[in-house]
Amino acid sequence: MQTSSPSNSNDERFMKRALDLAIKAMGRTSPNPLVGCVIAKDDQIVGEGYHLKAGTPHAEVHALADAGELARDATAYVTLEPCSHFGRTPPCAEALIRAGVKRVVVAMSDPNPLVSGRGIARLREIGIQVDVGLMCQEASLINEVFIKAITTGLPFVVYKTAMTLDGKIATETGDSRWVSSEGSRQYVHQLRDRYDVILAGSETVLIDNPALTCRLPSGRDPIRLIVDGKLRIPENAQVLSSSALSPCVIATTQAASREKLGRLNLLSGVEVWQYDTPRHVPLEKLLCDLVRRGWTSVLLEGGGGLAGTLIKEQCVDKVEFFIAPKLVGGNGPSPLSGLHIQHMSDALELHDLLFDMNSGDLHVTGYTSRSEIKGQMPEVSKRN
Amino acid sequence: MQTSSPSNSNDERFMKRALDLAIKAMGRTSPNPLVGCVIAKDDQIVGEGYHLKAGTPHAEVHALADAGELARDATAYVTLEPCSHFGRTPPCAEALIRAGVKRVVVAMSDPNPLVSGRGIARLREIGIQVDVGLMCQEASLINEVFIKAITTGLPFVVYKTAMTLDGKIATETGDSRWVSSEGSRQYVHQLRDRYDVILAGSETVLIDNPALTCRLPSGRDPIRLIVDGKLRIPENAQVLSSSALSPCVIATTQAASREKLGRLNLLSGVEVWQYDTPRHVPLEKLLCDLVRRGWTSVLLEGGGGLAGTLIKEQCVDKVEFFIAPKLVGGNGPSPLSGLHIQHMSDALELHDLLFDMNSGDLHVTGYTSRSEIKGQMPEVSKRN
Repeated sequence: MQTSSPSNSNDERFMKRALDLAIKAMGRTSPNPLVGCVIAKDDQIVGEGYHLKAGTPHAEVHALADAGELARDATAYVTLEPCSHFGRTPPCAEALIRAGVKRVVVAMSDPNPLVSGRGIARLREIGIQVDVGLMCQEASLINEVFIKAITTGLPFVVYKTAMTLDGKIATETGDSRWVSSEGSRQYVHQLRDRYDVILAGSETVLIDNPALTCRLPSGRDPIRLIVDGKLRIPENAQVLSSSALSPCVIATTQAASREKLGRLNLLSGVEVWQYDTPRHVPLEKLLCDLVRRGWTSVLLEGGGGLAGTLIKEQCVDKVEFFIAPKLVGGNGPSPLSGLHIQHMSDALELHDLLFDMNSGDLHVTGYTSRSEIKGQMPEVSKRN
Repeated sequence: MQTSSPSNSNDERFMKRALDLAIKAMGRTSPNPLVGCVIAKDDQIVGEGYHLKAGTPHAEVHALADAGELARDATAYVTLEPCSHFGRTPPCAEALIRAGVKRVVVAMSDPNPLVSGRGIARLREIGIQVDVGLMCQEASLINEVFIKAITTGLPFVVYKTAMTLDGKIATETGDSRWVSSEGSRQYVHQLRDRYDVILAGSETVLIDNPALTCRLPSGRDPIRLIVDGKLRIPENAQVLSSSALSPCVIATTQAASREKLGRLNLLSGVEVWQYDTPRHVPLEKLLCDLVRRGWTSVLLEGGGGLAGTLIKEQCVDKVEFFIAPKLVGGNGPSPLSGLHIQHMSDALELHDLLFDMNSGDLHVTGYTSRSEIKGQMPEVSKRN
């Protein structure tokens, strides 16, 4: 039997609570990370808080305010290394020092290579005990978006698709209503609520004319991004006006008609980004531009051509497949028609697979590469 | 909290043991069912046995012989209603009566409509207490093959396929080595060991030249059945001579060359069944002929054209999909190209889905229709 000392089990309990707090703001903090903080003293939580939105106070500030005078000589549990620099808000390391905490437990160090370790060093300099690495795997998982963006300058891209068990996203006549269950379609709205940008090709707009909004009662609409090299989007497409609160961006090329481009740019909430290329939108450049704009996560919703190209260009981090327990047969469209691997031994392997059937469909998620995050874990611990 | 009386929990324990015994002969009893029997007295097992092979003694006979004199006043647990008629062996109901058992617990009544209930009636006539329906769902599941064949005259057909997560059974160049994991391919040999017949189309023989044998150390080779309307099979195809112990059957039509047919028929272990049709083998008739020959289960191993046709003709009972966690993209072959459903709302829904990832691939099984077996359950219980 494994036993753990009371203090260890308390550490885990408080860090777990800090993680639970952090994810309350899922989809709301971009380009900032999710962070939760718990202040505990004599095995009791005396203050807690989490980061709500970029530009507003950090988790530590909320938690310290909640604890008040009780923060003195307490332990702070933070899911991410406290910042040591002035950004839009003052450094949290200083706030912890001023409040008089005597120990700080940090799940993971800051993945930003420019500042990583500085907050921890600052606290230790003052004589505060800092323990790093507790539940770092969980902490990095909730911030997979932030970690990707801060370390690469590219957004975290998820490809979501729905297909029948025999691998068809539509019948051979093109009928796709509906492949997946009510429950799965509801879950997709949770994804839309969580990711900054929904990406689709102009083909999808032409065929399905989707709104690409989030239909959850308290949801927020993502930015709709349409890759449309030849600017074929109809000027009355739903996606152009489906949300009053978030813009629709059309990425196009030199092949776009100047007049149409001008008319679209005049529409309220519509932006056209024209690239220098003759016909194909430079996808990696486009993705970089999203991060520059502060949009760090992308939900790719089709079609199979665009998805295949993005996977080929190694721009996709994660896939979410909803596999409906039904068969349609034939040679209708496939979920990754734009990817053309010739040898089975060269197939792109997926990692860290998870699956469930909670929605009535088989829901499979996987990563296109072994998570660098997990590769970092031991290093983070060693810094301890 | 649920509690159960000691006698109930013993009943379940002994029936569970009888079911465990029954499945030891999986794949060996065709066209007979799997049956296990336990004789218990004073909460102790005093005899047990199971049916090993058609033409040899039934489970009850083995168990009674094992119990000897201890069978008197004991309880017999049988997974299927004891027979009351003379077949190749004498009726088991009489054997139980002669042995002097005082109670018989039967999981399910005989699904053969011609004899169903007679064995139970015979036992009750003599004054033996008979309880029917304990673990009937488990009992019918292990005999899904027997139940299908005895109630319809058609074999139980399972379609097994392996595809990538994006629904491809090969890359667009036709490369399919290997789609599934080592573990899944090993499991396929367990399936081959269990089913009477392996079915494939001539296309599969021409492309892959498979042996279609069972490569388990203690496995037995299934009958290889090739649907080959135009008799295109090469005379040196592996499948014709891959097993010395079980025949290879080629089903063809009037389109077959008479000379080639004659030559193939002369090969040792090869049978050619020629149908009256001009080009296409009449699949349902072929399946009927298998049952007439005593072969009640079929493992269909491709390709997608034949599988699609068989599903369209409602000849497939169950599917086993091995979904490898990898992506190849493109528009390569699909697992059910021969099925051509036009509207998504007409998709063939699968039932009683199970899934696991034990082999490294996602292994999904499902049934093409709501199990009639389960429909029968309450009735079986009511007969009690």
